[in-house]
Amino acid sequence: MKLSEPTCPPGNQSLANRALKRKLPGRLLEDEPNRFRASLDNLRLSFLPEAVIRVREAADVATVLQLANRYGIPVTSRGAGSSATGSAVPIKGGWVLDLSALNTVKIDPVARIATVGAGVVTADLQAQVEAQGLFFPPDPSSKKYSTIGGNIACNAGGMRCVKYGVTRDYVLGLEGFLVDGSAFQFGLPLKKYVSGLNLRDLLIGSEGTLGVITSANLKLIPKPEKRWTGMFAFKTEASALKTVVALFKAGFSPSILEFLDRQSVACAEQYTGSAIFPGRARSAILLIELDGRAAEVREQRKSLLAFMEDRTIGQREARTEAQAEKFWQVRRTCSQSMFSLADTKLNEDIVVPLEKQAELIRYTLDLKKEIGLATPTFGHAGDGNLHVHIMYNRASKSEAKKAKAGIHQLMRKVVDLGGVITGEHGIGLAKAPFLSMQHSTSEIAAMQAVKNALDPLGILNPGKIFDAFEVWDHEPVDVCLPWDHR
Amino acid sequence: MKLSEPTCPPGNQSLANRALKRKLPGRLLEDEPNRFRASLDNLRLSFLPEAVIRVREAADVATVLQLANRYGIPVTSRGAGSSATGSAVPIKGGWVLDLSALNTVKIDPVARIATVGAGVVTADLQAQVEAQGLFFPPDPSSKKYSTIGGNIACNAGGMRCVKYGVTRDYVLGLEGFLVDGSAFQFGLPLKKYVSGLNLRDLLIGSEGTLGVITSANLKLIPKPEKRWTGMFAFKTEASALKTVVALFKAGFSPSILEFLDRQSVACAEQYTGSAIFPGRARSAILLIELDGRAAEVREQRKSLLAFMEDRTIGQREARTEAQAEKFWQVRRTCSQSMFSLADTKLNEDIVVPLEKQAELIRYTLDLKKEIGLATPTFGHAGDGNLHVHIMYNRASKSEAKKAKAGIHQLMRKVVDLGGVITGEHGIGLAKAPFLSMQHSTSEIAAMQAVKNALDPLGILNPGKIFDAFEVWDHEPVDVCLPWDHR
Repeated sequence: MKLSEPTCPPGNQSLANRALKRKLPGRLLEDEPNRFRASLDNLRLSFLPEAVIRVREAADVATVLQLANRYGIPVTSRGAGSSATGSAVPIKGGWVLDLSALNTVKIDPVARIATVGAGVVTADLQAQVEAQGLFFPPDPSSKKYSTIGGNIACNAGGMRCVKYGVTRDYVLGLEGFLVDGSAFQFGLPLKKYVSGLNLRDLLIGSEGTLGVITSANLKLIPKPEKRWTGMFAFKTEASALKTVVALFKAGFSPSILEFLDRQSVACAEQYTGSAIFPGRARSAILLIELDGRAAEVREQRKSLLAFMEDRTIGQREARTEAQAEKFWQVRRTCSQSMFSLADTKLNEDIVVPLEKQAELIRYTLDLKKEIGLATPTFGHAGDGNLHVHIMYNRASKSEAKKAKAGIHQLMRKVVDLGGVITGEHGIGLAKAPFLSMQHSTSEIAAMQAVKNALDPLGILNPGKIFDAFEVWDHEPVDVCLPWDHR
Repeated sequence: MKLSEPTCPPGNQSLANRALKRKLPGRLLEDEPNRFRASLDNLRLSFLPEAVIRVREAADVATVLQLANRYGIPVTSRGAGSSATGSAVPIKGGWVLDLSALNTVKIDPVARIATVGAGVVTADLQAQVEAQGLFFPPDPSSKKYSTIGGNIACNAGGMRCVKYGVTRDYVLGLEGFLVDGSAFQFGLPLKKYVSGLNLRDLLIGSEGTLGVITSANLKLIPKPEKRWTGMFAFKTEASALKTVVALFKAGFSPSILEFLDRQSVACAEQYTGSAIFPGRARSAILLIELDGRAAEVREQRKSLLAFMEDRTIGQREARTEAQAEKFWQVRRTCSQSMFSLADTKLNEDIVVPLEKQAELIRYTLDLKKEIGLATPTFGHAGDGNLHVHIMYNRASKSEAKKAKAGIHQLMRKVVDLGGVITGEHGIGLAKAPFLSMQHSTSEIAAMQAVKNALDPLGILNPGKIFDAFEVWDHEPVDVCLPWDHR
């Protein structure tokens, strides 16, 4: 199926801009720096919009959409632009709708529900919620920058999903606007709701292609009383990942269970200039957090250390919050530190069944040999959600070609293992070439029929999810984004 | 918007039946008893289908749908028929697709995922899962009969939602067939998945109107080590419901938190012939379960009993599992016991914000006075999800008229309080008159556009959710269903 695209005849854009300035004075930004900032996300491919609209209140969105319909202008919603897939990039030009000013937070500690503007930064919400003894678990690694609207648009995950689930699991209600500018409220700040077709969950993860979300009612849970963090070294990736399976078999329920392969550990150690387990051969690592009531954590810690005794070649536990933070810093450093291997990174977020993770890692090592490019991998081993990277130097045509071939092979392998091509980033532009590996023609046609039903003119974030796009054909821009060099 | 309906020209139905018998021998049942059984659900309005198709394997569904398309036959999917809203009733005739034979269960204790046929009975799944030390929390009161397919179709709730969420929160993947007979797999047995538009969650709660679900991958969690049950008596409904709010303020996280008003208690006591708190004036009741690690439950129990001390006029705790079961029996008896008040029941499952529950109960008591009909109410007070009933004698035209007016007033009040007209039953036929109280014209049009996109001919469960239907205009049948007289 070919989806519609807005047809903006010559001259329409400037008419639209003028109409917008008249109706919503002071929101339209046409200067180069603002357009450039809104032209890219963490994929770092830049497509300039015609203008950026900085909304001041939710009702502005209705006006913007009405004009977009009248003049045939593409509308791409945006929070912080920390998406990894290009889903926030205005690839068809038009307007970028900057929602970051919608940043109110209201917490109901009795119902344990927060009502939050789309522009609220995840970490800010978490801090406010925790001050009231409550907890909002979703923690994408971009949480210091990413907004709740963006998290919902791509159904963000993070490290705590193994115990607490993903963003979707915490969304009770959504407010926003359908493409024609009419307001919607799908779901409410209530714990149960089954009235009519569930467009709330259809919007979650739809990457801004079906409507504009302006605020959300989010479920909160009691804050765990106590946390404990341990780091465990393994001779090989396979032994680490077999231990993950054994942990679940033994009944453990860690709140975080992260894996780092030896390639990632090497990058992190080089970047920080210190060995993680000094004096030992380089090892694969599991980072584990336990949480809950103090007594429960004590008990689980004891069992875990006993369980790990014969399986690891080294273990460290954090005795203070600061020490724990240092452990997590190792994990967070990985992504950045990989650029010592090459200047360009293909960053995947595949998921495979827990018992297939060892096989997947074996495959990434075979791939490394085959294509001669580094394939450092780390990620959420408790979910089977691994960030596999292929590092290459962009100037080398042969490396770029090998990287492209390698990523296709990898995705095929993931699907063959019963996995999924994306676990928390979404499709955007970067994963669009692999959509048909994952889904049948009928499944894709059904998705497109739904897209057409809710956005018949194709105004909302056109060019995403379904359109052919080859990341490799586009030169990334050299830009320093807020989350670089943390 | 007017949705399409299948146009089955005269003679087509018998051609279709013949074609089906040829392609799938032995599945088609045309006899009166089977057609009658499939003609109704727990709403007890009977609309005879032309035939029942008892599928033997998932692939049968593709054949059925292909023929339904060719001949224009409505298809209504069915599990146990325990739906409360008429959503399983073949109101437009055609074929009923009986999925109860799809009853395989496969449990992966490492990934904590069960793969389950649509026809598996909820309680059977729970028993199998618990035998492996795991837990599938959703527990609709029909769980001894209801099937997983039906639970998913209406996003069933139950008593444990206050801590563990609803059916949706446990669905990772769905397999089944789109209306044209093409297979779908939306989601997989994986813990994270964000590939393409999320049609999985769109199908959950869609009451069989968008596709036919044949199996599901369900998330399991570790089985709580220990449970404790207590029953608390309050002078008034208001004091019980204020205590609910206070409990959450104080940080308690019960696994069940049920409320019974004095009208319900009176029915239950009359039905069982014994007083719940002997020797005391009739009281409103809270039934509370705590669960978790043994030490945590001990600690919470102690705090809870201290917290309740000055608030209650009586309290009992279950010292054994058998005693706990007796407490729950009181709650389960309520629904059945109400028929001592009148022969017909309007059974609602509204939700209001926790802090509005006391106001809602006050309203039901005012309504009782105003219309002169009993309004017994009980339900999931931890979720704000109350089952409000209006009892009337069907033969009395004046009572029927008052009941109808009363239920409209009640629904208006619920929406005014920021609530929702249905929390766990869905819309089906019974709540269709109230859909436009809950949703704007634009919201309903968006839902209908999605329905049209996925079922352009209107073959799947036609007449539900969106069509005007007046329960009061139809005579319920006098039938004994499996879950009666438990």
